[in-house]
Amino acid sequence: MKVLIAYYSKTGNTKQMAETIAESIKKENLEVILKRVEEVKAEDLVNYQGLIFGTPTYYGTCAYQIKKLLDESVAFHGKLDGKIGGAFTSSNNIGGGNETAISSILEAMLIHGMIIQGDFQGDHYGPVAIGALDKRAEANCQRFAKRFADLLKKISG
Amino acid sequence: MKVLIAYYSKTGNTKQMAETIAESIKKENLEVILKRVEEVKAEDLVNYQGLIFGTPTYYGTCAYQIKKLLDESVAFHGKLDGKIGGAFTSSNNIGGGNETAISSILEAMLIHGMIIQGDFQGDHYGPVAIGALDKRAEANCQRFAKRFADLLKKISG
Amino acid sequence: MKVLIAYYSKTGNTKQMAETIAESIKKENLEVILKRVEEVKAEDLVNYQGLIFGTPTYYGTCAYQIKKLLDESVAFHGKLDGKIGGAFTSSNNIGGGNETAISSILEAMLIHGMIIQGDFQGDHYGPVAIGALDKRAEANCQRFAKRFADLLKKISG
Amino acid sequence: MKVLIAYYSKTGNTKQMAETIAESIKKENLEVILKRVEEVKAEDLVNYQGLIFGTPTYYGTCAYQIKKLLDESVAFHGKLDGKIGGAFTSSNNIGGGNETAISSILEAMLIHGMIIQGDFQGDHYGPVAIGALDKRAEANCQRFAKRFADLLKKISG
Repeated sequence: MKVLIAYYSKTGNTKQMAETIAESIKKENLEVILKRVEEVKAEDLVNYQGLIFGTPTYYGTCAYQIKKLLDESVAFHGKLDGKIGGAFTSSNNIGGGNETAISSILEAMLIHGMIIQGDFQGDHYGPVAIGALDKRAEANCQRFAKRFADLLKKISG
Repeated sequence: MKVLIAYYSKTGNTKQMAETIAESIKKENLEVILKRVEEVKAEDLVNYQGLIFGTPTYYGTCAYQIKKLLDESVAFHGKLDGKIGGAFTSSNNIGGGNETAISSILEAMLIHGMIIQGDFQGDHYGPVAIGALDKRAEANCQRFAKRFADLLKKISG
Repeated sequence: MKVLIAYYSKTGNTKQMAETIAESIKKENLEVILKRVEEVKAEDLVNYQGLIFGTPTYYGTCAYQIKKLLDESVAFHGKLDGKIGGAFTSSNNIGGGNETAISSILEAMLIHGMIIQGDFQGDHYGPVAIGALDKRAEANCQRFAKRFADLLKKISG
Repeated sequence: MKVLIAYYSKTGNTKQMAETIAESIKKENLEVILKRVEEVKAEDLVNYQGLIFGTPTYYGTCAYQIKKLLDESVAFHGKLDGKIGGAFTSSNNIGGGNETAISSILEAMLIHGMIIQGDFQGDHYGPVAIGALDKRAEANCQRFAKRFADLLKKISG
């Protein structure tokens, strides 16, 4: 069971989140590949049981670099059906588009037939950092990773 | 493994969808309870492994009768974690708010920690009927039900 | 030119926001009526050039009491066309559904043919308070009110 | 008063919509520039009072080529405040992500401080074509264009 974490990061905030999530998933004894989204090819996506995308909040959706990969993944449409998905974002501002940015990724995952889970505690749709990773966001990333790993084991195990 | 389908219907369009989905889930050998949302109490929700809500598209979200049940479900917050969720809607118009209506229910389910799955074919977020149930919408309801049952068996089985 | 601010509030957080916005709009020399949503009838809505709704974030959308008014407003569908709309929310948590809650109201306003404006600074879709009104949220409410009044004067003036 | 219609089109469906909207806006005696999004530079956006973006529905949001322009527009953040915005999409399927695709553009416009209006008839958030432009979609495009022009004249006139 392998998990890909693909992220775009300009200032480093999203990268920090990605690394925190990667570390926490490894502790759950799952293999994790952490990559900048520019290094991921659409054809790679089929090789993972879990896919997590991280993005800065740019105008209420994901960075175009993430969207480019999602658009190109149409060549493998139907092949991601039943995989587990998740998303996280860093944002400048509390009401600044972070939830809609996460939604923009989760919607793409649903359209691929993927499975997603929310959280009744913390950041419900996926982890959000306001600026650099603070304690609150770090805890959300760790909790998200643990739940993601649990779901992956249940479904793909 | 029991599934609750709770719906609000005024003209009968949403009811038709609910009945079609219920019938298809029964064929998958799962127990299904079909109820008008006004007859469902928040405390009932914990008794099912799968929850499906159906609503007409009213101003881009679910009917307030559905939202009332969701708001009251806060008394059982945390107890729906890990359950499987899905949503469907009937709408007057193609670009008439049907996707956002389904999203309004799926978002609540994610906030409960529930698990949802999209579909790479047909109506990606959940079945949509434009007006009364036509062949297209019927096929979407049946396909949705089959996939929902498959996921439920995989996770709760 | 009259503005209605209709809000639902249980703990008082949303009410605080409503009062702050009302006060700031008054300073712009517009008439403001501030009402609990339970006291507003759908037929009242046609009497205002500006409509602002405030809600706690309940499961990612507005409280059902707000949705009930929106659903009942269908009796006046077409009569709100061209009015100015806005929304605000109080929420327990940063990634807790606040943006989708605001969206659930703005979507209804768009479906009524209403006009909305975002903000390039602060909370982009509408003011968000995390818990009680702090300095950050207060400034956002004041800024939102000023911009709302400016737009109303430009369009209805 | 000038309007820019920027679109991405692969199969020609979105282009058809763009041309229909452009023609209808011209009939309202406004200057319209119609461009493939690849030909638009972010710095161009400040020169128009009205901005309309058209996209195919790709995984529930706009094509990355549109998003790239939106991301690059950050260099002019604050300069689009108060402009009029709108969006349209072509999609393969009724419940196929068309509303969320339009929302992905409207959200970006709100974050720029732009003004948008819905429609109480037809496609509420913006015109949607399912496949090639049919009569229904054509009428929606024409109606959208007329309302867009009316709002632009009222605000910028």
